[in-house]
Amino acid sequence: MASNPQPKSSFHMSPEEFRKQGHAVIDWIADYYRRIESFPVMSRVQPGQIRASLPKEAPVQPESFENILADIEKIILPGITHWQSPNFFAYFPSNASGPATLGDLLSSGFGVQGMLWATSPACTELETHVLDWLVTALALPERFRSSSTGGGVIQDTASSSALCAVLAARERATNFESNRTGVGEKLIAYTSGQAHSSIEKAIKIAGLGSNNLRLIEVDESFAMRPDMLAEALQLDRARGFTPFFVCGTVGTTSSNGMDPLQEIGRVCREFNVWFHVDAAMSGTAAICPEFRRFQDGIEYADSYCFNPHKWMFTNFDCDCFYVADRKVLIETLSVVPEYLRNKATESGAVIDYRDWHVPLGRRFRALKLWFVLRYYGIEGVQFHVREHVRLAQDFASWVRGDKRFALVVPPPLNLVCFRLNAGDEANQQLMDALNRSGDLYLTHTKLNGRMVLRMSIGQTNTAEHHLEKAWKRIQEEASGLV
Amino acid sequence: MASNPQPKSSFHMSPEEFRKQGHAVIDWIADYYRRIESFPVMSRVQPGQIRASLPKEAPVQPESFENILADIEKIILPGITHWQSPNFFAYFPSNASGPATLGDLLSSGFGVQGMLWATSPACTELETHVLDWLVTALALPERFRSSSTGGGVIQDTASSSALCAVLAARERATNFESNRTGVGEKLIAYTSGQAHSSIEKAIKIAGLGSNNLRLIEVDESFAMRPDMLAEALQLDRARGFTPFFVCGTVGTTSSNGMDPLQEIGRVCREFNVWFHVDAAMSGTAAICPEFRRFQDGIEYADSYCFNPHKWMFTNFDCDCFYVADRKVLIETLSVVPEYLRNKATESGAVIDYRDWHVPLGRRFRALKLWFVLRYYGIEGVQFHVREHVRLAQDFASWVRGDKRFALVVPPPLNLVCFRLNAGDEANQQLMDALNRSGDLYLTHTKLNGRMVLRMSIGQTNTAEHHLEKAWKRIQEEASGLV
Repeated sequence: MASNPQPKSSFHMSPEEFRKQGHAVIDWIADYYRRIESFPVMSRVQPGQIRASLPKEAPVQPESFENILADIEKIILPGITHWQSPNFFAYFPSNASGPATLGDLLSSGFGVQGMLWATSPACTELETHVLDWLVTALALPERFRSSSTGGGVIQDTASSSALCAVLAARERATNFESNRTGVGEKLIAYTSGQAHSSIEKAIKIAGLGSNNLRLIEVDESFAMRPDMLAEALQLDRARGFTPFFVCGTVGTTSSNGMDPLQEIGRVCREFNVWFHVDAAMSGTAAICPEFRRFQDGIEYADSYCFNPHKWMFTNFDCDCFYVADRKVLIETLSVVPEYLRNKATESGAVIDYRDWHVPLGRRFRALKLWFVLRYYGIEGVQFHVREHVRLAQDFASWVRGDKRFALVVPPPLNLVCFRLNAGDEANQQLMDALNRSGDLYLTHTKLNGRMVLRMSIGQTNTAEHHLEKAWKRIQEEASGLV
Repeated sequence: MASNPQPKSSFHMSPEEFRKQGHAVIDWIADYYRRIESFPVMSRVQPGQIRASLPKEAPVQPESFENILADIEKIILPGITHWQSPNFFAYFPSNASGPATLGDLLSSGFGVQGMLWATSPACTELETHVLDWLVTALALPERFRSSSTGGGVIQDTASSSALCAVLAARERATNFESNRTGVGEKLIAYTSGQAHSSIEKAIKIAGLGSNNLRLIEVDESFAMRPDMLAEALQLDRARGFTPFFVCGTVGTTSSNGMDPLQEIGRVCREFNVWFHVDAAMSGTAAICPEFRRFQDGIEYADSYCFNPHKWMFTNFDCDCFYVADRKVLIETLSVVPEYLRNKATESGAVIDYRDWHVPLGRRFRALKLWFVLRYYGIEGVQFHVREHVRLAQDFASWVRGDKRFALVVPPPLNLVCFRLNAGDEANQQLMDALNRSGDLYLTHTKLNGRMVLRMSIGQTNTAEHHLEKAWKRIQEEASGLV
């Protein structure tokens, strides 16, 4: 061992070292994108395999950045399922992009906390502003705009937005008593049997009990039946319960079902319950005028969310959550200790986003969304959304043209649900074989009790030839099965 | 206008463009760190000023990346409060570092979702592994290790950890009934009057009612009095209520008060209530053996959290949350829809972090923490933590040596609470003048009903000369006031 006569006076990375290593990391990512299609889309590691390559304990001595970066290739890469591969059709898109990644890098560089306007005014104001931009771009109701009674905020996920919506609804329904006294009376929530699992999770978290969540029947397109909703509300009211919350979905996770917001909204107004709309993936489509029909009735909503981190080229996390009446949300979530008091807050002239969600700390997430909207322009986002929808419709027509397969439901946008005309077992085998091959990655759901395959089309770089290749592979594998 | 004969076939940033613009962004950040001390620490903009520089609507046409990046300098920078300045002493540190920023950049580049082991195994396994590393590094209880009954997970903030702890405690206390039936019986929670506001927020969110949160008295060091806790538990039990949750704090936000975990833990065990420990900032100190005494008794904890994004050179968001019994947490938060079912989950051989917190989606946050622990080594983190504590103790001695000032409480670690020996008005004036000067930024709290100034020492690059300069400026401004 070399002697070490001079004890280190800093272990930090200097700005010049950061410049050098930062370039190396950028290069690594650029190269990764160039070769991304050479990897099996779904990771092939076994449980425990990644951990087995890692030292049992953290190093005592510092390591060189070169060594650390080399382990990304050696240890981490085999354990990655490539969500940014154009051959990724599983779950939902989580489509990143260059401008978003670089906007987020600047957010890391600034390292500011945006819990209060005062803790970094640009962080709050850019967020409010860009969320107002999206009110126009998506033709959302005017009352979601910050200059009206409402406003928007970036949350981590639609799950957190659903929770905040449930909480605000709970407070409004109890005259802001439940925050202080706990949940006393029987409050009832409603959503469809096809709604996202986060609604049930939110109801549980809020202390309301999943027994008090009614799952309303859907029609053959997997959309909530407003007549059944009205009936359920009526019945609960007659029983002396308090209906307080309805969640409608624009694009259900399983099959992209579109709840009829107009009819549901009218029912909500009649019964005076909070109407939340979850448009996590499909909300983005409203940037194209021709797809806005799926959000008809959105003007009835008390709250709404969609995820640019799903289908708007913005890196996770970025869920845009809007409320029509921000006062209710803020009164629900505000707790002001002395150490956060400041003149700007007390002037009432500013937004403190701390009071709009569960966490206190928050990073500068608006930067990445701002970068995306400027780099693509509204026109660029529209172009790629239309392309994804066109590709999905093409894929559906190919399925229709092959008698071995059935289209389970006509795809409204970019998610195609189909199945092999054979038992669930054969469909499972087909999916497993495709995913094992590494050529593409798709996942499943159950509809009407049967296993269904899902092609979710929305990865940033998915183009026609990727989908053609995918369909060819699906047909090949099917040949061995039916 | 130039004619545009060829319609664009892609608006995406190519890998080569990403390489070029990525280098530019890295350079911008490196330059920002070199000149960071030239900016006033606290932003001087007025409410609305940033928004006024932004176009009213999003651009329809794409803009060049160069133009977008130029606006960071022109529009955003004036609205930044420089949390990464070594002259930032406000609130709490949120100390970023080069290796963390670059680890997070790779996370953006991969753009994977880690909700399930299967959706990117490396994301889950590295997280479990690095959190196990920290069990050793911080001498946390063995049952927090994933190979035991417990385990760790990265949450966004200590607020979310507190919420998950409250929920798991609520479920355990109701035999997992409250998730289904709602909160029926009267459950009582306890913490000190100096605990973080997120505890009250969590109790409200969970539907338990803040009236059922008892704020236990503190002693002269602002630490919870275990005798008063035992008395309160006794009284509530005698009244027929169900005590279910106690939160102890290692390093309160206002004054770094240290609750006696050993005594509190014994009381919790006696009354069979969930014991959560919030060590958001000060937990990091346990990496140095000489500071572990503040966590004596941590072995009684059912859950625990601390934030590497505060004082461990890891960019936000990174809160490490540990539980002693992961089964309770998972049973509390798990909801499994069909579209998330997979073989790895059903084998029981893997962790699915989706069931460890509120959100479903999650990014690859372990990378940045892994990079920090390797780049610094345990030795490097220890070195800088010790430096920050040494600087705080020096600062406290300077305060003691100037009769115009009073040290409000002896600083256990890196937060110094002091005040001018004058009215609150004079202290407010002193703080405002200092913050307005741009030379440093500090904030206040109230202790024993009086305004107190807080020097929170933990920014990555804060060194002795920054603190000397700060003290000189404080003395100068004080001269005009007393």
